[in-house]
Amino acid sequence: MVGVWPDNRHQAAVLRLLRDGGPSSRAELVEAVGLSRSKLGLEIDRLVERGLVEAVGPAASRGGRRSSVVRIATTTRFLGIDIGASTLDLAVVDGEMRMISRLTEQTDLRRGPAKVLAQALELVNKLRADTGTTRFAGAGVGVPGPVSFREGVPVSPPFMPGWHRFPVRETIATELACPVLVDNDVNIMALGEMHAGIARSFDDFLFVKIGAGIGCGIVVGGQVYRGATGSAGDIGHTSVDPHGPVCVCGNTGCLEAFFGGAALSRDALAAAQSGRSPQLAERLAEVGTVTSVDVARAAAEGDPYSIGMVRDGARRVGQVLAGLVSFFNPGLVVVGGGVAGIGHALLAEIRGVVYRSSPPLATGDMPIALSEMGDEAGLVGAARLISDHILTP
Amino acid sequence: MVGVWPDNRHQAAVLRLLRDGGPSSRAELVEAVGLSRSKLGLEIDRLVERGLVEAVGPAASRGGRRSSVVRIATTTRFLGIDIGASTLDLAVVDGEMRMISRLTEQTDLRRGPAKVLAQALELVNKLRADTGTTRFAGAGVGVPGPVSFREGVPVSPPFMPGWHRFPVRETIATELACPVLVDNDVNIMALGEMHAGIARSFDDFLFVKIGAGIGCGIVVGGQVYRGATGSAGDIGHTSVDPHGPVCVCGNTGCLEAFFGGAALSRDALAAAQSGRSPQLAERLAEVGTVTSVDVARAAAEGDPYSIGMVRDGARRVGQVLAGLVSFFNPGLVVVGGGVAGIGHALLAEIRGVVYRSSPPLATGDMPIALSEMGDEAGLVGAARLISDHILTP
Repeated sequence: MVGVWPDNRHQAAVLRLLRDGGPSSRAELVEAVGLSRSKLGLEIDRLVERGLVEAVGPAASRGGRRSSVVRIATTTRFLGIDIGASTLDLAVVDGEMRMISRLTEQTDLRRGPAKVLAQALELVNKLRADTGTTRFAGAGVGVPGPVSFREGVPVSPPFMPGWHRFPVRETIATELACPVLVDNDVNIMALGEMHAGIARSFDDFLFVKIGAGIGCGIVVGGQVYRGATGSAGDIGHTSVDPHGPVCVCGNTGCLEAFFGGAALSRDALAAAQSGRSPQLAERLAEVGTVTSVDVARAAAEGDPYSIGMVRDGARRVGQVLAGLVSFFNPGLVVVGGGVAGIGHALLAEIRGVVYRSSPPLATGDMPIALSEMGDEAGLVGAARLISDHILTP
Repeated sequence: MVGVWPDNRHQAAVLRLLRDGGPSSRAELVEAVGLSRSKLGLEIDRLVERGLVEAVGPAASRGGRRSSVVRIATTTRFLGIDIGASTLDLAVVDGEMRMISRLTEQTDLRRGPAKVLAQALELVNKLRADTGTTRFAGAGVGVPGPVSFREGVPVSPPFMPGWHRFPVRETIATELACPVLVDNDVNIMALGEMHAGIARSFDDFLFVKIGAGIGCGIVVGGQVYRGATGSAGDIGHTSVDPHGPVCVCGNTGCLEAFFGGAALSRDALAAAQSGRSPQLAERLAEVGTVTSVDVARAAAEGDPYSIGMVRDGARRVGQVLAGLVSFFNPGLVVVGGGVAGIGHALLAEIRGVVYRSSPPLATGDMPIALSEMGDEAGLVGAARLISDHILTP
């Protein structure tokens, strides 16, 4: 692939099939693309000549003349960059979106985009060296805030001073000399789940991320739906209680003001200091701080107060989700992000509220499941995002 | 058109352009379709031969050889059937979706599908006679409840005993001997708004119907989004207050339990009987009943209690809409349906809540507007629905 684009839609179709299905015989590709054997053969030959595809060997006999097997060039390299609230997560994947090498480092987005992107590009250089990559076919970048997808710039992201309209795409594209796309982190996680996760066979689904904040990726007809101005999926500031706490956004009773990593850490500290949770108080005394991770652990160990916090938050997430399920009627809801690590206690409560509140026609066949990809979803999704772009002639 | 389908996508493109743009010169069509003049000329000739398109005359000169103007055959007739909670509304439209003739009659859906559809088909016969139509190119049907779009049957519609899985499409198609599609009434209203209303230039928008019930039509990329099982847009049973009144659906505090025609009529009666609204009490004494129409009139005349009812209900609609705008980031929100007739007092309150609660990136350029089509939206939308289907080769 190596920075070169397909000449036409038939070549693009072949490359997508090889990306998603791995090595395939020419006969299988002919069947899937629906072009004549001779015409598609010429296109595949051209892809081989250009080094985008390589021959593997003869296929298992299906009777008659043996078809040969081809695959995406094994030298193909995509880059995924997942910029989180406090971490940089980067991976090099091959043409079949399999992870070749990965690096994670702490960061602080408040240092501003210039420093954070410089740190990311240093990690890219390490990855280049590790994997012997001279050139990436493309790079996908996720940032934890609203993004103008068309322009590749963040738009008024909260807690990210200096990032508003900073040319993230341009900065990275100039450095790497390859196509780059920038998207909201939740959207790329949804893409990752569609590519390699539990949403693989779904065209219309919701991916709910419960991390430091809460957001939603919307997939319609196999495509991420970004809305009129790119802010679709912003569910963290949906009001769940008009008499609730004041949120950082200025409104009261937003979902994020109740739940998500930040709210959970705040409540955990209060519970530890007041002694309402002996487990959390002990933890606070030991290490000087408590976070959502400690709540998850205490809940798993049976601490009633921590279980109550998880249940209460999950119920509010379920309340918002119930409305979205009625509205959007998805085929599947995937719950991911750091807080989703709390696991089945969280899931059980969300399921209870949604299945009870949404109409039977919407929930009848709709699973609500935990992500099995964890933080790999963002990296695979970022690579998938840019490869989709490149493979659109 | 007369029940005949286009042979290929170029013919379909020509017919869609003529449907949506009216009479056009061959030169304009060549430009819009992007096929060579000679090739498209042949396709148009074929459409003329088959009676689907007719020549109008020479176009105004643009220099050089004059192009001739063609239009959809003036004999083309589509049928729109809008089955409401208490009315049957039918119209015959021409190939440009202009209303030729229309009939409205009271009905009662509780009489069951056989009787109601027989009544509708009688009205069709009257319309046939009125307009001299021998055959419809197709018919679109809207019903006030969830529909399995693929099968053309209602699915567990509330207040419609006997309609569950009744073969509405098959019954009408057999009688009319033309293609028929059945959809939820809110979806066809959204299509109508997209075809001829305020949403004409929008690809991603929401149409909110506030009638006897409350529902939402979702348009993504110029297509109605129906969800995994066809129930998308069901927002009437979104919970707006866990301590609210019990809803007919069995949950508490649903939006419809607070607002919409039924809730408004219930509250109007209580206000009249208790004397909290002298205007409504007077109306009740005069005619023996009060409905949402009386609330609208009393509010317009300055009755404080009626204004309060409208504001309170609109605020709750706004609360649900704010969440959906954050989630879906539409380009436009259109408010229609019977209760929307209350007009600007309703609109002002909805706008206030949405613009205050949803994120600036989502609401910056997003108008919230009242429908200007009224109950014609459903009829035009029904015709548009079936013509889209026919013009998809």
